[in-house]
Amino acid sequence: MRIVDIRERSASISSSIRNAYIDFSSMTVSVVALITDVVRGGAPVIGYGFSSNGRYAQGGILRERFIPRIIEATPESLRTDVGDNLDPHKIWNTFMANEKPGGHGDRAVAAGALDMAVWDAVAKIDGQPLWRLLSERYNGGQCDRRALVYPGGGYYYPGKQLAQLQEEMRGYRDAGYRVVKMKIGGADLDTDMRRIDAVLEVVGDGRNLAVDANGRFDLPQAMAYGEAMRGYDLFWYEEPGDPLDYLLHATLAQHYPAALATGENLFSHQDLVNLLRYGGLRPDRDWIQLDPALSYGLTEYLRVMEAAEAHGWSRRRLIPHGGHQLALNIALGLQTGGAESYPGVFQPFGGFADGIPVVDGYTRGHDTPGMGVELKQDLYAELQRLTGD
Amino acid sequence: MRIVDIRERSASISSSIRNAYIDFSSMTVSVVALITDVVRGGAPVIGYGFSSNGRYAQGGILRERFIPRIIEATPESLRTDVGDNLDPHKIWNTFMANEKPGGHGDRAVAAGALDMAVWDAVAKIDGQPLWRLLSERYNGGQCDRRALVYPGGGYYYPGKQLAQLQEEMRGYRDAGYRVVKMKIGGADLDTDMRRIDAVLEVVGDGRNLAVDANGRFDLPQAMAYGEAMRGYDLFWYEEPGDPLDYLLHATLAQHYPAALATGENLFSHQDLVNLLRYGGLRPDRDWIQLDPALSYGLTEYLRVMEAAEAHGWSRRRLIPHGGHQLALNIALGLQTGGAESYPGVFQPFGGFADGIPVVDGYTRGHDTPGMGVELKQDLYAELQRLTGD
Repeated sequence: MRIVDIRERSASISSSIRNAYIDFSSMTVSVVALITDVVRGGAPVIGYGFSSNGRYAQGGILRERFIPRIIEATPESLRTDVGDNLDPHKIWNTFMANEKPGGHGDRAVAAGALDMAVWDAVAKIDGQPLWRLLSERYNGGQCDRRALVYPGGGYYYPGKQLAQLQEEMRGYRDAGYRVVKMKIGGADLDTDMRRIDAVLEVVGDGRNLAVDANGRFDLPQAMAYGEAMRGYDLFWYEEPGDPLDYLLHATLAQHYPAALATGENLFSHQDLVNLLRYGGLRPDRDWIQLDPALSYGLTEYLRVMEAAEAHGWSRRRLIPHGGHQLALNIALGLQTGGAESYPGVFQPFGGFADGIPVVDGYTRGHDTPGMGVELKQDLYAELQRLTGD
Repeated sequence: MRIVDIRERSASISSSIRNAYIDFSSMTVSVVALITDVVRGGAPVIGYGFSSNGRYAQGGILRERFIPRIIEATPESLRTDVGDNLDPHKIWNTFMANEKPGGHGDRAVAAGALDMAVWDAVAKIDGQPLWRLLSERYNGGQCDRRALVYPGGGYYYPGKQLAQLQEEMRGYRDAGYRVVKMKIGGADLDTDMRRIDAVLEVVGDGRNLAVDANGRFDLPQAMAYGEAMRGYDLFWYEEPGDPLDYLLHATLAQHYPAALATGENLFSHQDLVNLLRYGGLRPDRDWIQLDPALSYGLTEYLRVMEAAEAHGWSRRRLIPHGGHQLALNIALGLQTGGAESYPGVFQPFGGFADGIPVVDGYTRGHDTPGMGVELKQDLYAELQRLTGD
């Protein structure tokens, strides 16, 4: 059993959307195929992975550092002790060798794509859906039959007016979602409050609406928005300020009574520990959103969950960012609070299996081995560009 | 006045050395040349930059994100308002456009190399040594005639014994250095204490010796080393633990009375603010070591200095890591506490101008326009590979 080849390329996920911080017109992700000599169903097992949106493709780091370290390692050093499968932890340690501590940024994104391909291969070799494998290995066999999902939408499309925003939200509700999310911070407070009111006309209760400032605010702005929104009891108020400004979060949490959420721009368990130590977040209501496909992969996400629980947080307060199938497999198999979804944007990487609907705000797992990419036709076509002839 | 071209390549700085965390046998850096249409001395002004050691070359990020953003910008948007020079702050904002907050890692290294080339060009266009330009623009004309420098050495060379370590240190002292530095944490405590004692036989007082654990220790190990070394009154005890484990630093600072130093693996002013808020470091004795060539460049280092002073720290407590000429120019023109030096390793990027000696542990600035790379023959030859015919 060995890894025969690892291929990577960059794929566009450009969208004519922007949040409060960046536009996505030139956004890219890294796509990885890990080809093994293990045969299942008459064909070699290939694990597929991709990085999540927001931080660009990382081909340089994959080609120059991570992939060569794996290819140069002995096959024995990458397998389980009994040799019946690849060992994701050994592979992670191998591609992270000679990397200094700290500096968790682009490197974490490259690792996210690569590690995803490893876990997809491991689940395929094991003949199980990834969510079930995770349940058995790390959750005592427990799992969820369905996971809360919410669409990451409500962007500032150029020229989009309130009526179009309401139409977008009606579309999500018609598609089976209950909680929806919209961007704030890309306009002034009055404009954003009108946008929030317009969306509430569609979704009703504030508990059905999350808002996302994408780290744009300083403390006075974050407090002003918090003050304006405090009567709405929103599902959450996401990324109010710079992800590393723990003091801002701690101060806001003392004044804003409803739920806060952050973490998609923290990329390691070390950074999460600092958020939990210093960010003043409340384990009974706030949400942690690290994205495994941006932050060193599922292998690191296991450490993220361990760190959260060591600080007294339930894994139900974790909702991984990214809207990809890895997050959904984690949500089901490891019983987090749910997962983001991208039914409308970042295609073909956002969203889940084609044939499995969202019902009452929840979706279910797949039954095929691996992460399930073969069940999402447009995604699988994109991934196969790495391995097709 | 405009930027005609920006070229980059990766260069090897491989060394058969290791610290407590990584070996440097496949270490690389990014080298950048920024070619302008400004003519000085009959030739176009070219700014040169390079990243510092420890975090690898970043060609992917430079080629795919940063350089295209500058090349696609209008020349007017990259110049000073009066149009007499390039504006490093505008250029920095241009290449960092559409980059999300947080995640300060490899991206910061790519920016470090690019921003260095910008400042080298700006000082050349201005006809001044960079240190003098910094003094005039940001330090009210004040500067230091000489800067404290110490050699970053004392690695674990394979097979190196105590006698060889002493010989290395005698070489530094003969070359004019007073304070020397050695690695710890790559062996057990007893072995490291014997190595420390051996070096003290050469350099005498503990105030002449800094030790560097490169982030290797957990808290019990960091405390055990601190306890063993507390009687030596060392110049500093560097990177005792993970650079993001602020609680470890705060705890150690309560027990270890002599100076601590850290920061080479923090890559933004946001991360420094967290170290100062939560790391328990003491502004009367401890040292901050962010490396401008690894952490978004001199442009960000100005924010680093501002953040340090806003938290009550003197800029004299800052000693930039990296052993390169950018750090020396900063030390002289902005009056930090000094700069690291690499007389022996990471060539040709470590070290300063060929003809300017180290005397009694201090070295002086150069007199030519720019950062001074033309005065270091082996470095200039390497940099010219980007622009030669």
